[in-house]
This record gives sequence, C-alpha cells and structure tokens, in this order.
Amino acid sequence: MRALVKHRAGPELELQTGRAVPECGPRDVLIRVLKAGICGTDRHIWEWDAWAAGRIPVGITTGHEFVGIIERVGSAVTKYSPGLRVSAEGHICSWSDYNARTGAAHIARDTQILGVDRDGCFAEYVCVPEENVWPVHPSIPDHVAAILDPLGNAVHTVMAANVSAKTVLITGVGIIGLMAVTVAKAAGASRIFVTDLDEKRLALAQKLGACAAYKANDPNWIEKVRKQTRGDGPDALIEMSGHPAAIDDGFKCLRMGGTAALLGIPSRPIAFDLTNHVIFKGATVLGINGRKMFETWYQMEELLLSGRLELDEIITHQLPFDQFRKGFELMQSGEGIKVVLEIGGR
Amino acid sequence: MRALVKHRAGPELELQTGRAVPECGPRDVLIRVLKAGICGTDRHIWEWDAWAAGRIPVGITTGHEFVGIIERVGSAVTKYSPGLRVSAEGHICSWSDYNARTGAAHIARDTQILGVDRDGCFAEYVCVPEENVWPVHPSIPDHVAAILDPLGNAVHTVMAANVSAKTVLITGVGIIGLMAVTVAKAAGASRIFVTDLDEKRLALAQKLGACAAYKANDPNWIEKVRKQTRGDGPDALIEMSGHPAAIDDGFKCLRMGGTAALLGIPSRPIAFDLTNHVIFKGATVLGINGRKMFETWYQMEELLLSGRLELDEIITHQLPFDQFRKGFELMQSGEGIKVVLEIGGR
Amino acid sequence: MRALVKHRAGPELELQTGRAVPECGPRDVLIRVLKAGICGTDRHIWEWDAWAAGRIPVGITTGHEFVGIIERVGSAVTKYSPGLRVSAEGHICSWSDYNARTGAAHIARDTQILGVDRDGCFAEYVCVPEENVWPVHPSIPDHVAAILDPLGNAVHTVMAANVSAKTVLITGVGIIGLMAVTVAKAAGASRIFVTDLDEKRLALAQKLGACAAYKANDPNWIEKVRKQTRGDGPDALIEMSGHPAAIDDGFKCLRMGGTAALLGIPSRPIAFDLTNHVIFKGATVLGINGRKMFETWYQMEELLLSGRLELDEIITHQLPFDQFRKGFELMQSGEGIKVVLEIGGR
Amino acid sequence: MRALVKHRAGPELELQTGRAVPECGPRDVLIRVLKAGICGTDRHIWEWDAWAAGRIPVGITTGHEFVGIIERVGSAVTKYSPGLRVSAEGHICSWSDYNARTGAAHIARDTQILGVDRDGCFAEYVCVPEENVWPVHPSIPDHVAAILDPLGNAVHTVMAANVSAKTVLITGVGIIGLMAVTVAKAAGASRIFVTDLDEKRLALAQKLGACAAYKANDPNWIEKVRKQTRGDGPDALIEMSGHPAAIDDGFKCLRMGGTAALLGIPSRPIAFDLTNHVIFKGATVLGINGRKMFETWYQMEELLLSGRLELDEIITHQLPFDQFRKGFELMQSGEGIKVVLEIGGR
Repeated sequence: MRALVKHRAGPELELQTGRAVPECGPRDVLIRVLKAGICGTDRHIWEWDAWAAGRIPVGITTGHEFVGIIERVGSAVTKYSPGLRVSAEGHICSWSDYNARTGAAHIARDTQILGVDRDGCFAEYVCVPEENVWPVHPSIPDHVAAILDPLGNAVHTVMAANVSAKTVLITGVGIIGLMAVTVAKAAGASRIFVTDLDEKRLALAQKLGACAAYKANDPNWIEKVRKQTRGDGPDALIEMSGHPAAIDDGFKCLRMGGTAALLGIPSRPIAFDLTNHVIFKGATVLGINGRKMFETWYQMEELLLSGRLELDEIITHQLPFDQFRKGFELMQSGEGIKVVLEIGGR
Repeated sequence: MRALVKHRAGPELELQTGRAVPECGPRDVLIRVLKAGICGTDRHIWEWDAWAAGRIPVGITTGHEFVGIIERVGSAVTKYSPGLRVSAEGHICSWSDYNARTGAAHIARDTQILGVDRDGCFAEYVCVPEENVWPVHPSIPDHVAAILDPLGNAVHTVMAANVSAKTVLITGVGIIGLMAVTVAKAAGASRIFVTDLDEKRLALAQKLGACAAYKANDPNWIEKVRKQTRGDGPDALIEMSGHPAAIDDGFKCLRMGGTAALLGIPSRPIAFDLTNHVIFKGATVLGINGRKMFETWYQMEELLLSGRLELDEIITHQLPFDQFRKGFELMQSGEGIKVVLEIGGR
Repeated sequence: MRALVKHRAGPELELQTGRAVPECGPRDVLIRVLKAGICGTDRHIWEWDAWAAGRIPVGITTGHEFVGIIERVGSAVTKYSPGLRVSAEGHICSWSDYNARTGAAHIARDTQILGVDRDGCFAEYVCVPEENVWPVHPSIPDHVAAILDPLGNAVHTVMAANVSAKTVLITGVGIIGLMAVTVAKAAGASRIFVTDLDEKRLALAQKLGACAAYKANDPNWIEKVRKQTRGDGPDALIEMSGHPAAIDDGFKCLRMGGTAALLGIPSRPIAFDLTNHVIFKGATVLGINGRKMFETWYQMEELLLSGRLELDEIITHQLPFDQFRKGFELMQSGEGIKVVLEIGGR
Repeated sequence: MRALVKHRAGPELELQTGRAVPECGPRDVLIRVLKAGICGTDRHIWEWDAWAAGRIPVGITTGHEFVGIIERVGSAVTKYSPGLRVSAEGHICSWSDYNARTGAAHIARDTQILGVDRDGCFAEYVCVPEENVWPVHPSIPDHVAAILDPLGNAVHTVMAANVSAKTVLITGVGIIGLMAVTVAKAAGASRIFVTDLDEKRLALAQKLGACAAYKANDPNWIEKVRKQTRGDGPDALIEMSGHPAAIDDGFKCLRMGGTAALLGIPSRPIAFDLTNHVIFKGATVLGINGRKMFETWYQMEELLLSGRLELDEIITHQLPFDQFRKGFELMQSGEGIKVVLEIGGR
C-alpha cells in the first residue's frame, strides 16, 4: 500500500508504495483510510525539530487524524463490522490504570499515539484497537470527520472551561484556537475575546464569532477587555498559544475566581506568577491533554449536529494524497489552516 | 400614589389612588416603578384560588417583577444612589441562615416574596432592601428589564441542567417554558425537544429554537425523541408543566444517567416511579426554586448581552397601568403570553 | 465442579456436583472461587419472589460477590495472568453505549448481572470478561474481598452524597445501611443520624459511628435531628430502606438545598411530594445504581487501606459451602447480617 | 483601652493604653475581645519586612483572629444582639461585585483585611461589619474560637482539594500545614503524606494523622510516595510552603489528573513547568485565598463538632496580653506553633 513515512532522521516525509498493510491483532480493527488531516504535530515531524528527533522512530508511518471504512476486524472484536464509516481516537492505552478505568483514559499512564509512537493514518490502511474506534454520524461529511481529533482538542478545552453564559478570552487563534472560537460560541459562551499577532487570523476569529479581537502586542487590550466585563475581566481563559507572554497576559486579564483551561504548550518551564495569577486570584487552572475518551467525542458530535460549528473557513484545503508536500507547505506559509489529504476513494 | 391592591378576599384587584408611598427603612431603597410584568402568580392572586386565599394578606399591593429608578435610599445604604435604573430580586430574606450565608439565599429559611407577603411593584413606588437591588445594564430595554424575575426562573433552571452541547427535553412551553427554549439555545444546548398540548405554543417554541415539538398526547413522542438521541433519550429534562403525566413521560424519555431540572409545581403529591425514573436510571434530579442570588442574574445579563435571547414574541403586550384588567384577561385567554404594565414615565 | 443452582421454578437452591466448569471465551478470565457473599438479591432468588420468578432463568448458577484466584485467561486477554487474586464487578456490559464509553458503565444499556442473568460465583469456578476483573490489594483479607460488591453499593451511595464535613441522615440500617454508616464516617461525615425499626441494628449503627439512632416510628425524630443541625436538618440523606414512609420522612428532614442519594428500591410507584421535597426545597436527588466502574472500587480500596472501615460486626458468619442453607436461614432470621460462604481453599 | 499598635515604621509593636474604643457605624458590631491568635502575618508586621513596610499603615491596631462578646450593635444592625459570643471573618468587603454577590466574597475586589488595612483585634475592643460576624457554637472553647481564621485557611484548602477517600500530599507542615493534616484526616482523606525540613514538625504531623512524613531534601521521597499509591502518585496536593522546590516536587509527585490546592505563597514569580506539571498531567490547580464566606466557617464548625480535630498540640501557648513579646519570640524560635493572647476576661 501507499504510506507517508518518516524515511530518515531528518526533514520531510516520503510517500512509499508497496508498504505492507498493517497486521490486525485479535482485538484490532483495520480501516481503509478515506481522508486524513495534517496536524501541527505532523509539521514537527516533517521539520524534524528537537521534539520529533527525540521521539519519532525512523521508519514510522505518520498521521493520526482521519476517517475511513472498516475493512477487517480481529477475531475477538465484538462491537464493529466491516463497512462501517469510522474515525478513531489516536491515544492508544492498555485500559489498566486508574485513569483509564475511571473515565480519564486520555491521561492514562502508558499511552501510545498513532503516527507518533506507532504506524499512523497517512496510508491506505491503518490499524487501531477496537476500543479506539468512533463510528461517524451519517450527517457529518468526510472532510470534517477527518479532523475530529484536533477539533476534539478544541472541544475538550472549551467544555472543560464551562463557557455557557460566560465571557471567554482565547489567547492564540491558530488552528485549534480558531476551532475553539466556533466551538465556544456553539457551546453557549456569551461573548468571546481573542488575541493573536496575526491580523488575518484575528479577522477570521471575529467572523467565526469573537466579539472583539486584539493584537497581542496592543498594550491596552487587557484594559479594553476588562471594561467590557464589568471591570472584572473574563470568566474563562482558554490558552491556545503556549507563549509565556500570552499566558501571563491571559492570567492578568482573567477575573478573580475565573477558570483557565490550558492547551497551548510552552516548550520549557516559564517564569510564572503563581501568587497573583492563581493563589490570590482564587483561580481554577485546568491542564488539557488530548480529548476525553469518549465524552469529548459525544460532545463534538452534538455540536456538529447542532449545525452551529463553522469549519468551512478553517478547513482551507483538500488535496490528493500525492500532493502531501504542497499540504505541508501551505501550513508552513500560513496560507492554509487545516489541510486534508484525500487518500482513498469510496 | 396609585397601586394595584388585593382589596378583598375574592377575585380581581383594585387600582387604588392615594395609597401612601412605602416607608423606606435605613437599609432600604425606594424605587419609582417604570414597568412591571404580570406573572402567573399574579393571576392566581387575581383569581383568588385556594393557594392565594391561604397565603395573600388582603390589602397588599401586588406585583413582583419590574424595572424602575431609585428615588431615595435609607440612611445606612452604602451601595446605591438615587437615579440608578434598577430591577430587584423579589425574594427578601434576613441573610442569616446557612443557605443565605453560602450563596444560596434563594432557598433561605425565612424568605418573604414581594407582592405576595409584602407590598409589591404594581404601584408607583416600591421599597426593597439594598441587598435585593439589581442595577440594569444600559443595553437592556425597559420592557425586558421588567421581566428579569421570570426570565431568571428559566435561566436558573436551564443553567442548573447544564445544557451546553447537550440534548434537552422541555416538557411544557407556557411562559417560562418558552423562555427556557430561547435560554437553552443561547446557553449552548445542541438540540431542544419540547412537548405541550397547545399547538400555538409548540409552533412558537420551534420558532425560538426547538428542533422538534410534540403534542404531549402523541403516544409515540418518547420513541421519536429517543430515535434522534442515539436510542438513549435526551441528556437533560427541563420540567416546566407541573403536570403528573408530563413529569412521568419526561422521566421515561430521559436517558440513563441524565439530569432533570424541575421547576413546574404539581399541586399535590403525585404517584412517582422513583425506582425506574431515578434510582435504576442513575438520574440527577434538581429542584429549582426562584433564582440564585445573584449568580442567575449575572448569567441572565450575559445571555442578554450575547444578543441571542429572543423575547419579542414572548412579551406579547405592553399596556398602560389602568388597562391592567385587559392584561389579566389577555393572559387568561392565552392570547397574551407575557404582559407588561407601563406604570411610570421617565 | 460444585455449584449452587436455581434448579426449579420455586424456592431454594440446590448444590449440584459435576456441573461443567464454565467455558472461557477469548476475552474472558476463569476464576477459581475462594469465598463468596450471600446478597439480599440471592435471598430473593432463594425465596423465588415475583421479581425472581420474572427474571431468573431456571438452571442458572447463582451468586455475584466473591474473591478468587485467576485460573486461566482467554487467548485475547492482555491485562491479567493466572495466579492473581481478584474480585470482579458483577455488572457485565458491552462497553458500546454512551454511558459505558464515558465512565458510567454501571448504567450502561445492555447490562447483564452475574448470578442473575448468567452463571455466577456460588461455584468452584466463575467466568467473567477481562474488563470486569478487580485485582485485590494484598492487605485486604479474603472474607472482606468477598463482599466488595455490596460494600461498593454503600461506597457509591456515600461518595455520591459527598459527605465530607457534613451531617448525614441514613434511613434504613440493613446490611448496606450499616456499611454506609462506617463508610460515611471513614469518608469524613461529621455527624451521622440513622433511623430504622430494628433496635439491634440501631445499636450496631451507633457502635459503627452514628451519633444518634432513632426508631423510625418515633414521631419526634425529625425534630430531634433538626435541633442538632442548626434547625436546618441534615446536609445529606442516604436512603437505604426503599420504604415509602422512610423516604417521605427522610426528605422532610433534609435541609433546604440538601442532597439525597437513593439506593433503597421501592417495589412500586409511591405517592411523592415532589413540590415540597424536591422543588421548593431546592434539593439535589441522586439515583444510585450499582457501583461506578471503577471509580467506586478505587475509593473502596482507599477506604479499606485507611483502616477506618469497621466490617467485623457486619460480616457476622463464615460458613463452609455445603452449609449454604444455614447461611440463607441466618439472613432470613436476622441473626446474620452478611454471611460469607467458603467455597475453595488456596 | 489597651491595644497592640504598629507604632512606627520599623520592627516590633507597642502595647498602648488609653487608645479610643473604635467608633461603631450603623451597620457595625463592637466586640469585646476575649482571646486573639498571633498569625504569621502578624509576625511579618512585627518584623516589618518589605511586604509589611509596603502595606501596613503606621498607627494601626494589629491582629485579625479572635473571639469575643458583642458589646454594642449599630442602629441598623438586625441580626445580632449584645452578649453573643462571636468570632469574625477578617476580610471586609462592600458586597457589591460579582464575587461578593455569588458566594465568593473571599475574593471580592475591594477587600480590606482586619489588622492589616484597618484596626484589628489585638485590643480590648474591635469593630466589624454585621456581615462579618460569626456566632460561635457553645461547644467550642475560647482558645479554639480565637483561631478560626487560620484554621479556616486550612479547612478551605482541604475542602477545595476534595480529599474524601483520597490520598493526599501536604508539602509544608508549618502552622497551617499542621492544621491541614488534622483537617484532612477528619474530612476523610484515606492516607496523608507530608514533607517538610523540620523534623519536629514532621513528627507532629504523623501524630496528627499523616501515614508517612519525609524530609523535603530526601531525594527519594517522591518515589516512596508513588510506591504507596499504585505507582500513580497521590490524588491531591495541598501546597502549604510557598517554596519553589516544594511546589515543583509536589507537582512532580501528583498523579496524572490529580488536584492541587495552593495556599502557600511564593514571594515572587517562580520557574514553573506548566507543560508537564499541569497541561500534560491533566491537573486541576486551585488557588486558595482566605476562607469562603461562610461555607468554610460552617464546614469548620462541623469538623469541630465531629470531635476529630486535634488542635491541642498546635495551640502550644496561651499568654496574658502583656506578654505579647514572648508570644512573638516563641513563634520566631519555632518553640511555639500557634500562640493565643488572653486579652479580656468574661
């Protein structure tokens, strides 16, 4: 089969043909991939940065967000049959530790990630354990079903921040931050403020539902947001940038007793004013990792069924599989936001 | 001053002139009333039913939902000054018991209700303790500010049911049930199902955001809702009818592990299948009383500021004070939904 | 093998020899049973009441609470190996519906119960799916490990009621009610009040940690409890009787805004004052079903490791397997509380 | 009257006589002080460190934790009468902002602290607003009633961390940390681990209920705690030291998905590994400020009524008012833990 492989300990990926279809264990499901999204993580792997060099095994098939059709099921599989259109959760765990057994498998101890620690979905076929399969609702089109994994990051963050009838500040409107805008609006946030350095993204955020968008280097944005929120600051902070200054400003702006949900990942320890930002503020800070298995997926399905998510301007490009190079370039240039590869036909 | 008074132990109310302006104690605020809404409770008082006859002191000024301007403040008042446009919470308590001191004053032990236990707002002036005052946001028009009290019932119920990204069933779309439809949609409910016997109200509920509306006597509605909710039933039940059969059906329909928020008041104990509706179902049942003081009011302000609440077809009539009789008749005939009386000018 | 079987559509059970050891599917685990507890449910099956006659298939091996040693694992089992001492959750589900996939498998749609719907643990061997296995902490003795299932009912109820630093009323101190007393105390309830009709059980409840115990027919007990709780009533009601009068009294006594966790099962719909007991009271009512899989099990392990659970006077008898008849008689007479059968040796 | 006054912009306090009894406004209560506790904050004021020099107005009467008898009430006071034994919440706010009006007055915007921003309780009389008064349960002795304020810090932190049936790590067992040990045990924590550098305090923590106590510089303590908690780490972290290394270690030790409640105050921004400690860990971090008004006070009363709090070894000294100097010295030397001054007789 064809697969996009990390072929060497260096930049780029190679589209290999003649790669073996994955072996399907007794509890596994083999899925024929229709479409797959390119994630920021895939860009790290493509660019072979320090993180990628330290984690990714050379020779691996990359990719972890996709939709496909079940081709074959293992001998001990009980829940699914061939022919079903499915996506899958990319965090694969052994379901044996405390978190996995209490509804928090997304932070289980022994997790492997598809396309990072084992062969992924930039290929004609991908194999996942039965437990990871998510049947896709018929009303959800393929190109949306292909990106449920990153959309799930946004949904997990927004739902954790509990935004219903609340004011929300989103710091950073990259791919997931933009998704968070439309998700927060659909989930009932009353008013959404966003910050970023990219004016194009700020404009798009407003189109998706933000009531105000500020350049992150505007020295007065905190005061402006505060004025619109009874002088208190917003009820919730959704941190999507991972940037130390954005984190610092976000916490400064957050109201006393507010909730911060953090998804953006600082690349190293940061200087953090725990005393004023958290302790005196009486804040609740929530670390967000992946997607809840599978509460987030159900919430996401409902948000999609509500008809209120606007993803058309976030999924900017769909490309044939062999134009993968263009896909990565579109993301690198900022011209593309979410790029979906068309891998298999029906 | 003019005031609408329960003048005798029998039906109707009398518009009296020359009634004394209320005395304002050291911690009280005297408010000049601009507009006031007629509540279902006021109808009970007008009609002098068993409940009213047992509770309402003859001679009382009625009415509890209103907007006005502060005219005068007591000597020990610290927070407000004359000239401020305000509404007020109608539950008046002594702020001394457990619930009052822990953020749940709406269920304090010693509560008096404005226009029920003490003189209310169907009058040119009304007096309330400083603690009960709610400054109204400038963007909220008077006729909406006049009905924050009942809107608050809907907001309290919907927010307790935690509807964000969830399917919701609302049984009963009278005044508060209709408000709950637009509130639930604004608060992020993914899909809203409603039942009632009145086809006109069902149609209005759909206009306000319900995805499906069923006659409560349709023997198949439970099955129809279940089919649209993965076979499980809705995540949340918002009970607004107080009718035993609606309560029974609502719980039947609710999914295993769902949440029921109950505002509708059965007039007597009902036969209730606690075993199947609550215990085996693993349900969470929330009794809703009044509005949270003042969390609900803040949530309500945010929902109004979001621009997503549609109240224009719920507030059907605004009438001069002396046409109060017509107001009650409009409500009795069902032609009116929420009727607002214009009591004072600016 | 030997097994205690529902041998006919009538009272009693028969100890059969020569029964086949259960077949172990690819995802199943075969367990050699050491000890097993007799549950109230088993009594219903023994006595062949209407519920049992309507649900239990004749020919089934009964029993669902036990400890044993893994004898054999199916070909696709990944988590456990022979020799491990384990108990198991008796609710067996297909892990495919909303609740099962979101941490609430105890209320999954398609659940079978061990010893009720399929062969149980009153036998030398019992077979359960891998997902249901619970490895037992070495510090927990066999006779306690044999009753984790009913103890889990008590733990689930108490933990749902969130009793830490709160006053608690437990209505009904049968087997599970008595367990709830020691669990509530260990879990941090400040003061525990109990009611029952059985004076011996009331005395035992006080020994286990109740600060006061009342005959349920004492007309003044509600007032007495209220006097000890600021005049408000207790923060939490834990209903363990299923009796309509106890439920009614329990809700009367509960403070405004209190939480009621209901485990006792009324045998039919009851007359219930939803208006005063739930709606006006602003109460939270939680239906409790089984045990959370596996949050309750982890909580139970911690409570046992704390050394604060007192179970010695609740597990009143341990009997050799062939004295099962005596075990049922002890429970019927009330002389025994929890009876454990010794089925296999090490 | 006599009062302990910050008499100059430098170290120490002066016991002045002939100071005027505070004026009591219409909404205030004048309290005759019986006993008052010396807080760590008072030590900062005594020592006149940078924080104190920047905040404390010279001439102020210090002290904020006390018990006394109401002497006089203002003209608009409605809830209390002279003769009542009371303590008081030391955070004084105007009850007008979002937090104050929604049950979170402890983080209101405009808060003044007794003995820090206005005259405090190291005096024969102290004046507080009616809203701040806390009637003391008759069963609580004066020397305990005198320290409800700091005990409330411990109760607020422990209750926020939700410790019932959970393992807890307390980093730092100074005054509040030691209180947290006995509070956590009473509130139902299953097992409590503590760290500190002071061996005497570690030994006392074990006496009060910790199952294990580690020197904070033991390089293996994290691993030792993890081994006792399924390899996961404790469910909850209660941070009482404010020390960067203790915070870092505490978060390292906390299990994936655990909860950290932070009361200890770092004196400046610290290098913090937000990525691993919070985001990837899926942690919940709670900033703790003061005591909830008045939920914490009710919880504290219940914990005291449960008879499970052990404060006798924490309140090490009671001294006559004029031996205040010795009190401060006992605290500075570490010989005293909590020192109570006897200010007035009955």
